[in-house]
Amino acid sequence: MTMEHVKPRLFFTQEEYDRRLAKTRKAMQMKGVDVLICTEPANMAWLTGYDGWSFYVHQCVIVTMEGQPIWYGRTQDANGAKVTCYLDHENILSYPDHYVQSTERHPMDLLSAILIDKGFSSASIGLEMDNYYFSAAAYCSLLKHMPNAKFVDCNVLVHWQRAAKSEPELEMMRTAGRIVEAMHARIREHARPGLPKNELVAEIYDASLRGVEGIGGDYAAIVPLLPSGADASAPHLTWDDRPFKLGEGTFFEVAGSYHRYHCPLSRSVFMGKPTQQFLDAEKAVLEGMEAGLEMAKVGNVCEDIANAFFGVLKKYGIVKDNRTGYPIGLAYPPDWGEHTMSLRAGDRTVLEEGMTFHFMTGLWQDGWGLEITESIAIGTNGPECLANVPRELVIVD
Amino acid sequence: MTMEHVKPRLFFTQEEYDRRLAKTRKAMQMKGVDVLICTEPANMAWLTGYDGWSFYVHQCVIVTMEGQPIWYGRTQDANGAKVTCYLDHENILSYPDHYVQSTERHPMDLLSAILIDKGFSSASIGLEMDNYYFSAAAYCSLLKHMPNAKFVDCNVLVHWQRAAKSEPELEMMRTAGRIVEAMHARIREHARPGLPKNELVAEIYDASLRGVEGIGGDYAAIVPLLPSGADASAPHLTWDDRPFKLGEGTFFEVAGSYHRYHCPLSRSVFMGKPTQQFLDAEKAVLEGMEAGLEMAKVGNVCEDIANAFFGVLKKYGIVKDNRTGYPIGLAYPPDWGEHTMSLRAGDRTVLEEGMTFHFMTGLWQDGWGLEITESIAIGTNGPECLANVPRELVIVD
Repeated sequence: MTMEHVKPRLFFTQEEYDRRLAKTRKAMQMKGVDVLICTEPANMAWLTGYDGWSFYVHQCVIVTMEGQPIWYGRTQDANGAKVTCYLDHENILSYPDHYVQSTERHPMDLLSAILIDKGFSSASIGLEMDNYYFSAAAYCSLLKHMPNAKFVDCNVLVHWQRAAKSEPELEMMRTAGRIVEAMHARIREHARPGLPKNELVAEIYDASLRGVEGIGGDYAAIVPLLPSGADASAPHLTWDDRPFKLGEGTFFEVAGSYHRYHCPLSRSVFMGKPTQQFLDAEKAVLEGMEAGLEMAKVGNVCEDIANAFFGVLKKYGIVKDNRTGYPIGLAYPPDWGEHTMSLRAGDRTVLEEGMTFHFMTGLWQDGWGLEITESIAIGTNGPECLANVPRELVIVD
Repeated sequence: MTMEHVKPRLFFTQEEYDRRLAKTRKAMQMKGVDVLICTEPANMAWLTGYDGWSFYVHQCVIVTMEGQPIWYGRTQDANGAKVTCYLDHENILSYPDHYVQSTERHPMDLLSAILIDKGFSSASIGLEMDNYYFSAAAYCSLLKHMPNAKFVDCNVLVHWQRAAKSEPELEMMRTAGRIVEAMHARIREHARPGLPKNELVAEIYDASLRGVEGIGGDYAAIVPLLPSGADASAPHLTWDDRPFKLGEGTFFEVAGSYHRYHCPLSRSVFMGKPTQQFLDAEKAVLEGMEAGLEMAKVGNVCEDIANAFFGVLKKYGIVKDNRTGYPIGLAYPPDWGEHTMSLRAGDRTVLEEGMTFHFMTGLWQDGWGLEITESIAIGTNGPECLANVPRELVIVD
């Protein structure tokens, strides 16, 4: 089949994509911007369906107040847009390959020419200023080539539209929840002293990819994190090929992913007899989690969850000097967090039906660490846990 | 063990880290910069050993003309720096958690204060302007808080120092080569019509992680790419859970990774009887690859390889309108390419001993695609192929 006649594969209805676009335009209007340049891959996917590991080169989706969004990227990736986006092919634009990693020209130079050609030379243009995929050089190119435009920071404007999930999105996250359940079951089944870490990681990936009941898993935006002993004092170390040791605790922070929707979940394992410190921490976290979950309902605010959790930690004399959660959903590397709300003191965002969070109750202490977390969807009377995995510390002898 | 007494795990000698630092300082001097802010995770690792999936928040390594580099990142990740960097703990600096994804303050605000405190308020400061991990907002923060500094684009300055690999680095890439051999062996063993793609991906990950001869594999900077049929007209689509079909070609672009050093390699599989178009393309690519490899030696230039390859394609009437390779080595998501040289017409960079490339001879055509590639190290008399996998199209009935 030639690309001219290829029919895109979409995972949501056209009506849902239309609603997303309308919500985005409303937010643009409130910000006073005529044109929005979305470089965040999850925003590109949410708005158009675009899916591919092409975010290592410059690309974006452009939203104006009329017509379809425009996909802009490298010429060789334009076919990927034809396969995955609902857009008419005339709205898939691209730059030639000599723009790739050139010291003489930048893909955003050409985008400026396109925007000017479309009549936006003096427009108010929204930019995702603190996004991984909108570099300082991309910004400087736009400043240089569109001297009459007004640039407005719209860093998490589309992220905010994604905060409350639709029912079809929640269904995808529940499927990701089933997958992460299988991943933790595999961990409980295989974790033992002497097993090289990379071999347990192979089991974790196997469970995440084979999925559940004929539904295959996708890659997660973050690889499995499973530091042991003193390494667990740091939240973001990955693995090597040394064996698990007796007398060490390990947390496993992993996510199931389905069509790029995530359900992260952490559990902890101790090989041998846990220290009293570890058991006390488990008790505090489990009690604090219950207190936090009770506050996770429509009408409360983000900090209510955090304050309830930290209140219990304080009672136990445990200090955690970082936030205790963030929104989740559709995501691409390097992060499965949505960068809008934080579960921390001072965040007074009102919780809405269908908002989804990773309630990140992890502790990273001096020489050890423990993570027992839940991914939740906010409901009227309380949260829905997106996965069902026993919370207790797993003890392996 | 408390973090105060933790001993870092390093994969290279201190002498090698010292040589890297000296090379970098020499390049900084030639650029006239006093301070270099490295945000690229591979540069951070190459300079200090730092390793962790923390690049989703702002972090960097700062190089000045004296003393050790400085690691700067989120407080909860500072323990990760203690575990993986050779730096004295006084050179590991961090920002509190309320700087994370805040709309009121940026981690680079605090970095400016630190640099000013160290006497660099009027310094010439090098920035990696087009890096994923140096956003437009990070740049604007520095401009605002260091009004007297002179900022200089040093986008791939450290990348260039990494171009010619040391012997210990080449050894890591050869190990990654053994791993990618195992990955392609697994593909040949399992690929068949009717197998859901995600199940073959599970096999690929299993081979990549279990590694070879007691050596475990690491995660690659790009996930496996394995589009089939018309999807293969796009180079960067990932997988889903639909089965492989008779009458379709699939390319498998995957990489072995060992301590973050990569060996990418692509091979193609056809289920059923390949079309003549597919067989002709295979012939052209294999012949073109031989012609290119002959030019891949010390003293030639990048475009020599490209011109030799494209010369053969032209003879066969095949158009490939994108570059045919890029440097590889130490890498973090989202890319395993090094962003310095390109194998394309016009790139006159002289090839040096130990430079390593992914010779990306892939074809993405209208409705189909084929990839048969090699990862190579440049030698005096020709290239060393870092992996040994039969090049021929794999035909599965």
